[in-house]
Amino acid sequence: MTNPTAAMLVIGDEILSGRTRDANMHFLAGELTKQGIDLNEVRIVSDDHDAIVAAVIALKDGFDHVFTSGGIGPTHDDITADCIAAAFGDTIDVRADAVALLSAHYKRQGTELNDARLRMARIPDSASLIENPVSVAPGFTIGNVHVMAGVPAVFQAMVATVLPTLTGGAPVLSQSLRIDRGEGDIAGPLGELAAEFADLSMGSYPFQRDGAYGANVVIRGQDGARVTEAMARLVAIFPGTPV
Amino acid sequence: MTNPTAAMLVIGDEILSGRTRDANMHFLAGELTKQGIDLNEVRIVSDDHDAIVAAVIALKDGFDHVFTSGGIGPTHDDITADCIAAAFGDTIDVRADAVALLSAHYKRQGTELNDARLRMARIPDSASLIENPVSVAPGFTIGNVHVMAGVPAVFQAMVATVLPTLTGGAPVLSQSLRIDRGEGDIAGPLGELAAEFADLSMGSYPFQRDGAYGANVVIRGQDGARVTEAMARLVAIFPGTPV
Repeated sequence: MTNPTAAMLVIGDEILSGRTRDANMHFLAGELTKQGIDLNEVRIVSDDHDAIVAAVIALKDGFDHVFTSGGIGPTHDDITADCIAAAFGDTIDVRADAVALLSAHYKRQGTELNDARLRMARIPDSASLIENPVSVAPGFTIGNVHVMAGVPAVFQAMVATVLPTLTGGAPVLSQSLRIDRGEGDIAGPLGELAAEFADLSMGSYPFQRDGAYGANVVIRGQDGARVTEAMARLVAIFPGTPV
Repeated sequence: MTNPTAAMLVIGDEILSGRTRDANMHFLAGELTKQGIDLNEVRIVSDDHDAIVAAVIALKDGFDHVFTSGGIGPTHDDITADCIAAAFGDTIDVRADAVALLSAHYKRQGTELNDARLRMARIPDSASLIENPVSVAPGFTIGNVHVMAGVPAVFQAMVATVLPTLTGGAPVLSQSLRIDRGEGDIAGPLGELAAEFADLSMGSYPFQRDGAYGANVVIRGQDGARVTEAMARLVAIFPGTPV
């Protein structure tokens, strides 16, 4: 069985400049894995119109689902919504349903719904809104692209809204073994085991700890019994520490 | 003045599955910023031949420099070197200069240079080697693509070898101000300031802390005096905390 595929597009200069570390990618990767949707590619681009449009077009055509984070706030550098509309050839303006949400929220807070905040109601005409229980300003889904905020608490809330609406596949199960030997010793027998269990995926992730080499070997698959069988064989060859 | 551009390609299933968090991207981003090379895009792809080749071709044609991490070890899932050769239409085999390095290293260690370890000497014919002072197995540069290991200590050592050989631009200087107000209040005046200082880049990165909203506003540019001037203007509008 083939699981649905997904890609993520992270929009933000602050990650490319090294100023901040992305947290949303790691969160989304874990959630998609649990739901049986395979995250196959991530791209990070700067707050640049042409770069965002090109990436959205490439990813929406290449994968079943695309998730974006960042660039939907009220400031001048928040250009994601307009870029997404351009990528779909859709029109975009301040939309009444989004204004209604913001208007009620800011009235309750006693905050002015100024021009800047109204920018957050710019939604492509054919999109449907993604609820934002944290700070109200909505995300949106257009075609197979889900457009979400960059602030982690808001991104996570939007993911929690969107994911249950998507059809997942069989969750990918994994078991890991830490082997305190160099990858060069592990590689031969591991390669043979991987060839024998071609229905599973085996990855070796080397590390260096206190000057010693080792590797975490991860066996992944949709059939738990097969993963367990392969792991038992691996442990028989390389007694290690389950991690 | 326009700085050289760069892209990074991270190769590894373990990041896309949510198992581990990438550390190399954040490190490289910071080093490139210091050297005046603009990291414009990052892609993360899985250990898949076609995906790696397609990404390498797109990035090498689109940017001045490309840096890759991951997939050059001895195990069956380490396919980066062969993919890079395919992307450049180059031939690849176990190369004598790389074998000599490995051979001397493993002889000193009393470790067998087995078939798996010999895989780490697979280098495209037209590439030059990147020294690896940590664990000897080399990276390589072919055209404008620098191919490095995924283990952070090794990746960092290889970056330290490669970066001094590249011509940088003017380092991008930045100053940041934490403003404890909602972005909707900041956006109007900030947009006007950004329009007035069009030679600088101003970004607003919102956060939520203890239930309160705020934003870090970052002003970037190559002319330190201009950055200072713009920051003084911003502070006059929004007294905040330098960060």
